[in-house]
Amino acid sequence: MVPAIAQEESTGEVLMMAWMNAEAIRKTLETGRVTYWSRSRQSFWVKGESSGHVQELVDFRVDCDRDCLLVLVRQSGPACHTNRRSCFYTAVRDGEEVELMLPMV
Amino acid sequence: MVPAIAQEESTGEVLMMAWMNAEAIRKTLETGRVTYWSRSRQSFWVKGESSGHVQELVDFRVDCDRDCLLVLVRQSGPACHTNRRSCFYTAVRDGEEVELMLPMV
Repeated sequence: MVPAIAQEESTGEVLMMAWMNAEAIRKTLETGRVTYWSRSRQSFWVKGESSGHVQELVDFRVDCDRDCLLVLVRQSGPACHTNRRSCFYTAVRDGEEVELMLPMV
Repeated sequence: MVPAIAQEESTGEVLMMAWMNAEAIRKTLETGRVTYWSRSRQSFWVKGESSGHVQELVDFRVDCDRDCLLVLVRQSGPACHTNRRSCFYTAVRDGEEVELMLPMV
């Protein structure tokens, strides 16, 4: 199992990180629909299958150590379960947490 | 220990992924020099300390689940130990691996 970083292809925004196993990788490449492996639920997770916030695969990258993936995607709506565009909406600045993004409406 | 994604602030390019523990996070925030925890060497790793390819911290982000970090950086030279700008220089396209980047000179 390896971490997979999802990046919006058109803007470069890093949207989220989740996990893939070999079968999730195969499904992602075959279907063009980004599919993760949920460690908590121990099941495949076709991103957006219930919410409609799908990730269409644009390019699939693997890193030098072959232990991390970068998927370039076209994200429909928010990537985050909090309804924010990206999961990385909190910054730590001068020891304080700052929220950078509102939930999408 | 959590995965930390390094992204070049000026271009949005995803450079690498490595790991941080609580102390690496503290060092990174205090010094402004991105510092990881090397799992293989079991030691801190101030990025670029030996190579000069440092990462100057621009912004520090934490994700919704608080189990993944995104550091926006100014990267000096290549981020990858292969001398490429990014570790994600290999794409998988039509079942074939394609190299997208040459080592920097």
